[in-house]
Amino acid sequence: MNDDVLLMIPGPTNVPTAVLEAIGQPTMYHRGPEFSALLDKCNRGLRTVFQTSQDVLILSSSGTGGVEAAITNLVNPDDRVLAIRGGKFGERMGEIAERYGALVTWVEVAPGKAAEPHQIADLLARRPFKAVLFVQNETSTGVTQNVATLAKIAHDYRCVTILDCVSGMGGIPVKTDEWGIDAVVSGSQKAFMLPPGLAFVSLSERAWELARTRKTPTYYFDLIEARKSLEKGQTPWTPAVNLIQGLGASLDLMLAEGMDHVYARHAAAGRAVRRAMQSLGLRLFADPAYASNVVTSVHAPEGISSTSLVKQLADDAHIIISNGQGELKGRIFRIGHMGAFDEETITRTVEAVARTLALLGHACDPTAAATTCMEAYRQ
Amino acid sequence: MNDDVLLMIPGPTNVPTAVLEAIGQPTMYHRGPEFSALLDKCNRGLRTVFQTSQDVLILSSSGTGGVEAAITNLVNPDDRVLAIRGGKFGERMGEIAERYGALVTWVEVAPGKAAEPHQIADLLARRPFKAVLFVQNETSTGVTQNVATLAKIAHDYRCVTILDCVSGMGGIPVKTDEWGIDAVVSGSQKAFMLPPGLAFVSLSERAWELARTRKTPTYYFDLIEARKSLEKGQTPWTPAVNLIQGLGASLDLMLAEGMDHVYARHAAAGRAVRRAMQSLGLRLFADPAYASNVVTSVHAPEGISSTSLVKQLADDAHIIISNGQGELKGRIFRIGHMGAFDEETITRTVEAVARTLALLGHACDPTAAATTCMEAYRQ
Repeated sequence: MNDDVLLMIPGPTNVPTAVLEAIGQPTMYHRGPEFSALLDKCNRGLRTVFQTSQDVLILSSSGTGGVEAAITNLVNPDDRVLAIRGGKFGERMGEIAERYGALVTWVEVAPGKAAEPHQIADLLARRPFKAVLFVQNETSTGVTQNVATLAKIAHDYRCVTILDCVSGMGGIPVKTDEWGIDAVVSGSQKAFMLPPGLAFVSLSERAWELARTRKTPTYYFDLIEARKSLEKGQTPWTPAVNLIQGLGASLDLMLAEGMDHVYARHAAAGRAVRRAMQSLGLRLFADPAYASNVVTSVHAPEGISSTSLVKQLADDAHIIISNGQGELKGRIFRIGHMGAFDEETITRTVEAVARTLALLGHACDPTAAATTCMEAYRQ
Repeated sequence: MNDDVLLMIPGPTNVPTAVLEAIGQPTMYHRGPEFSALLDKCNRGLRTVFQTSQDVLILSSSGTGGVEAAITNLVNPDDRVLAIRGGKFGERMGEIAERYGALVTWVEVAPGKAAEPHQIADLLARRPFKAVLFVQNETSTGVTQNVATLAKIAHDYRCVTILDCVSGMGGIPVKTDEWGIDAVVSGSQKAFMLPPGLAFVSLSERAWELARTRKTPTYYFDLIEARKSLEKGQTPWTPAVNLIQGLGASLDLMLAEGMDHVYARHAAAGRAVRRAMQSLGLRLFADPAYASNVVTSVHAPEGISSTSLVKQLADDAHIIISNGQGELKGRIFRIGHMGAFDEETITRTVEAVARTLALLGHACDPTAAATTCMEAYRQ
């Protein structure tokens, strides 16, 4: 199929061979003891990554399904919620809440910026809100928000916090319990190095209380049912067994490497890609104070469309990076560095991007960029 | 893992090697032309199996998610709907509708029986209903309902028909367009020979009209969005790419075999297992007029719990069959024969069941049962 393709988009990511092998094994019997043991192992591994003592539920859906699960189980119709519109995924959270009848107040944040704590505090001081919905890492812009600070403000105003960590969890630390995040959602196809198709959700004690008196209708994403089933070593509906087999393998890899090392590797990649892009004379798109360590967004150079870059790079080097989305299409490009990568992968990508830009007419030195990248990675 | 285990439950089923290999390939880029071509190929293959000229949408969820999608997109709060409670999956359809605020009238059907056409006609004659929700093949009891007849009655009363074909589609013919079914739902882990994690949904023209004026909230399962994305060769949310890679491979297998042959093979298996079970002196659970060709339900013999049979068979022969569910636990057992099986698989299962029953004290001749099975299969 596409063995020779390097997926350097902000998810889905390259999947390690050991994980693909586990996924390609025969489907386990989903009501048997072997699968229950696997579910338990995954729950324990996910708790470590989520930094929570709560169960982490595994849903068979995309990350968006997990976000819907968190919102529908915790937010009722006519509840006032705050949502941060600073990119596609923050917008999606608010849209889901609106779809189910919540009253959404939007915090407008310029693309490439993060929500300023005082913006949030001012809004929360003005009137009571039930919940604050926010994204840890906005892949559409390459921005990582300050989750600890935003969560603290939300809690000062007694708001429930619902956090989309789909793209950041496993690459950028999230201290779920320490920061008191009420609902944390992630997905399989990012730093977890799995194909898409699984979402992971943890709720705080307070959130479980809210879910019990939920008024928004939900069935497939009913987290109370999911938790009841988990207590019996099962899932309420037939789950995506083979992907969960892969999850067992990917958690083994992550925990064997050690989460501190995993986070340091992502930080190294973020640093290396940012420096290398700057060394090419390119402008980074994300506010440097909030630059993401799992995806780097870069302005295309004057006169070159990022659409051409993305296409040429795929054709010549078989490396897939992402274009900007919506209004940013053609204007920025995004390099994902999440999950299964190493210094070689990152450097190869940077050098290929530079060569392609040179080909498209941007004056730059690809070899020097590769050296800058390597040095920054090792720093 | 469990290479030597034969999964003879009514789904998930054994997955052919070619399908497992496709699933274990690197994850395709989900926004690239290669994946769009795969989506298109799957859509065309699914249309053939569904016997419809409409698009068949691929959702990343269990079958239950697909059923929720069909119901939430077509049934509004306070709509009156008819649901048939003759097993776990018929009940689930009504429960989903109730959860989202529909007014459900239950048609009570004894386990092992199918809904009688006159029962449905009488209820529909009494008052107007928006929709009839029913299951083609009720895996919990081994009953296949007469879909064509029920659909005709529903249409005579201008009701929308929503059909759960999760376990039957691909094993028992469903003439979606000819019978005028408005929403047809299936799932990957049954006759499609795939692991669980995908649902398939087709809507009629009339159903698409209804979806456009939908009042029930839904986001992840918004079929209008799914169809819009499909027109661009995409899915609205990052899909379970590797399972879709497997779907491509499994549709290749089904269409190469030819759907008529696939259906005949399932009919042969149903006939063979029923005859063999009767030759062991066992009583079939499902009404013979509605006996399923994808799962056979059988009363455990006097004095032997089906729980013991299921456990002993797994321990001794590494063949997994299903116990009864709910009240039927310990009382019946269920043998699945869907997807990837042949005469050898079926005969081996029958003989092993007979040997295990003999071991547990039931007087019977396993070799004769195997012969009966083979003969009936070939008939």
